Amino acid sequence: MDGPSRIGLVGLAVMGQNLALNIAEKGFPISVYNRSANKVDETVERAKLEGNLPVKGYYHPKEFVLSIQKPRCIIILVKAGSPVDQTIETLSQYLEKGDCIIDGGNEWYENTERRAAAAKTKGLLYLGMGVSGGEEGARNGPSLMPGGTLEAYKYIEDIVKKIAAQVSDGPCVTYVGPGGAGNFVKMVHNGIEYGDMELIAEAYDVLKSVGGLTNQELQETFAEWNKGELESFLIEITADIFLVKDDKDDGELVDKVLDKTGMKGTGKWTVQQAAELSIAAPTIATSLDMRYLSGLKEERVEAAKVFKEAGITDILTVKNINKKELIDNVRKALYASKICSYAQGMNLIRAKSIEKGWNLDLGELARIWKGGCIIRAKFLDRIKQAYHRNPKLSSLLIDPEFATEMVERQGAWRKVVTLAIEVGVSTPGMSASLAYFDTYRRGRLPANLVQAQRDYFGAHTYERTDIPGSFHTEWFKIAKKQINSSEGSVRASM
Amino acid sequence: MDGPSRIGLVGLAVMGQNLALNIAEKGFPISVYNRSANKVDETVERAKLEGNLPVKGYYHPKEFVLSIQKPRCIIILVKAGSPVDQTIETLSQYLEKGDCIIDGGNEWYENTERRAAAAKTKGLLYLGMGVSGGEEGARNGPSLMPGGTLEAYKYIEDIVKKIAAQVSDGPCVTYVGPGGAGNFVKMVHNGIEYGDMELIAEAYDVLKSVGGLTNQELQETFAEWNKGELESFLIEITADIFLVKDDKDDGELVDKVLDKTGMKGTGKWTVQQAAELSIAAPTIATSLDMRYLSGLKEERVEAAKVFKEAGITDILTVKNINKKELIDNVRKALYASKICSYAQGMNLIRAKSIEKGWNLDLGELARIWKGGCIIRAKFLDRIKQAYHRNPKLSSLLIDPEFATEMVERQGAWRKVVTLAIEVGVSTPGMSASLAYFDTYRRGRLPANLVQAQRDYFGAHTYERTDIPGSFHTEWFKIAKKQINSSEGSVRASM
Repeated sequence: MDGPSRIGLVGLAVMGQNLALNIAEKGFPISVYNRSANKVDETVERAKLEGNLPVKGYYHPKEFVLSIQKPRCIIILVKAGSPVDQTIETLSQYLEKGDCIIDGGNEWYENTERRAAAAKTKGLLYLGMGVSGGEEGARNGPSLMPGGTLEAYKYIEDIVKKIAAQVSDGPCVTYVGPGGAGNFVKMVHNGIEYGDMELIAEAYDVLKSVGGLTNQELQETFAEWNKGELESFLIEITADIFLVKDDKDDGELVDKVLDKTGMKGTGKWTVQQAAELSIAAPTIATSLDMRYLSGLKEERVEAAKVFKEAGITDILTVKNINKKELIDNVRKALYASKICSYAQGMNLIRAKSIEKGWNLDLGELARIWKGGCIIRAKFLDRIKQAYHRNPKLSSLLIDPEFATEMVERQGAWRKVVTLAIEVGVSTPGMSASLAYFDTYRRGRLPANLVQAQRDYFGAHTYERTDIPGSFHTEWFKIAKKQINSSEGSVRASM
Repeated sequence: MDGPSRIGLVGLAVMGQNLALNIAEKGFPISVYNRSANKVDETVERAKLEGNLPVKGYYHPKEFVLSIQKPRCIIILVKAGSPVDQTIETLSQYLEKGDCIIDGGNEWYENTERRAAAAKTKGLLYLGMGVSGGEEGARNGPSLMPGGTLEAYKYIEDIVKKIAAQVSDGPCVTYVGPGGAGNFVKMVHNGIEYGDMELIAEAYDVLKSVGGLTNQELQETFAEWNKGELESFLIEITADIFLVKDDKDDGELVDKVLDKTGMKGTGKWTVQQAAELSIAAPTIATSLDMRYLSGLKEERVEAAKVFKEAGITDILTVKNINKKELIDNVRKALYASKICSYAQGMNLIRAKSIEKGWNLDLGELARIWKGGCIIRAKFLDRIKQAYHRNPKLSSLLIDPEFATEMVERQGAWRKVVTLAIEVGVSTPGMSASLAYFDTYRRGRLPANLVQAQRDYFGAHTYERTDIPGSFHTEWFKIAKKQINSSEGSVRASM
């Protein structure tokens, strides 16, 4: 490996190592650098073992930068936030005009926009590139969501198209859009991922706690589901999970895993952005809330005791269940809920795209999620098609195909949610999705009362259904007059 | 009215006028100022008409400031955001060390902290004071939530205690806490208000759309509810609303009010802060989402058509309903849901108090909401008592009295939510509350599966239920080995 490398990569935790090896394997000589030298050695060693891949390790940032062909492209894979700023500062000393920095972390999109502006003043180009697929995806084909200047994307297009996951309609990468669009789209991807995981957990809970399915039956159910409309990475790994025996005790490991869920920030940002952009995203918001409530393990154990003393137990009633029917209904409920969740995520991306003038292509985003990433699923091809049929589709729910599917499943969906409620097992994500569906499909909501209340106490005015304009009514005075006159007439008639 | 005024007020929209008149009426001479002179005249005129109240109008900020006794206290009631900054800049030219600015708007708490710090450098004191109760409350007794330096609060304590709403256990005002605590608490108050209004709207929807109640029956129902556990301002005005006839057409006005709800930002902030502080607040979040979805009127009308074509109508099935029983169940569902919503709001305030070291007294906050404000309710005295019984109460839900009430109502609550789901009318707030309740009271949640998934694809590790420590498992490898060995044994047995 002589001559300059095609690209560089900084940050050699497992993700970084794997992405570097993936790039090298596709035939692009790569320079790698990390602050702690042992990670550099580790990466070079792995490159050797995994087929003498063209990876060259560097222990000093200057040598590292100078080893890359111009215009230089350097991928940064360090912890989001100030480590990124520090890395940029270090590299900038040696970078030259026209070189390009690519942040591959889960970064807040505004940080990317701030850094891109700062880089521009130095004549540097900048990309914020969402990378999904975990460690395995990084090595064997992730889904990549690069955003920033198109010119910078063109520098790396040949590389990213080769290293990304490959699906029937191309590599799972596209130029997402300008500014922080790549990070924003990755953030929403993660929010959708939260939703998917919560919905699967609820399906598991209903099947186990209400249906009494064993881990083996659960494994068979999810494996079976993975052959149909729910086919996806998360359903596949769920089936796998039930196979794993506990090596410390009898039974399956999943039953010994503590019911406390961690998180890393992108789900929270998604929920906050939805609120900011006036987008209802209840399924995603619920999945975040459930992570928070799962974290209160000790409080919940205590609450279970308090409520037991007050008269109710965990499971309120045991139902006589037809397992086959239940499994079928839960599958439909999960699928319908999932459509709602994706509709929310897509609407959030569109709202941001409009706000920022990013001009994002929702169908193309669905396409690059078809492979490589955590939410990869057969179903995403359907979403791609829906947006290709109608790029201005206001919601996935009213795409004719999805609308039909939801109508076919809504009966089963209602059965699952009401059954869960009767039994006292919560399905917060499925019921939030169902409420979202039932709200969105109603031409008339009880919001007239809310607006009347607002006009009553705050003179916020209201519109009318029959005539245009903005109106205010003295509700209090009229109502009191009415009460007085009817009291008067009661008195008069006595 | 000779000599300096006791206090000053800037910003003479209706809220400002009313608050000034309230202060004057309680015997505190007040100077008022507004950029547009006609508002000054209007206020002075009203002061004359409403009993020769000691209000003196000023057309120039300098004269206005100099007319107030030292240390000067000036309440600002202008639009939140930059108008507040501009007003402060204008006044600051004439203010002297030791004077105090009091912002009475719905301001973002961090803006108040920024302004308080800036004021401090000039030797000025600063309060951010939440004011709730709408126009009527401002005139006749609002609930006041002042936060900032205690010294500044002491300057106005005699005034605010007189002008606030008076309830059995004192005036509806207290020194909330330092910094932006007053604004933060007012923000959460508004979030809770969103929740209350949404839950009432859902009760209305179920009674009307499922129970077939007429507006007269609805009026009677809410008036009746206002005599019991639900007694509150919002229930009272809801009953009033159904009394108001449409003056442009037959029937009641409420039916002509467009189902599109406005909002002003505090609800959004509440939801974003809940996410930020890891507090599940699904009832409040749902109420925000429902405002957003109500805004999509044209989209919903379109969606209703699409789903009608796909085979389902607005109301899916007409049920044979016992009205009396339904009314009773809805009342219980509303009350239980309300407890969940307040538990979320209180937990949010506590989380912020801990983060900022504000040391807020939740029981005392419930007390000052008993009168004057939009969420004023009998029920708040119960919350006050719960926190007095146990100031460290981790959730209102597990206060022994509330726990018992929830257990008594949970059967009815489940009936209402499942009935609504079967009929296709959504009760998103009630069902989010119920899911919250059912999640919080369960010692074991399906979050073990989520954490196993996270460990599977991201090596995020997990804890165990039986032994301490942090673990990682090679789920993929073990599962594939298991699958291969069972395939092997199938092959061997063939």
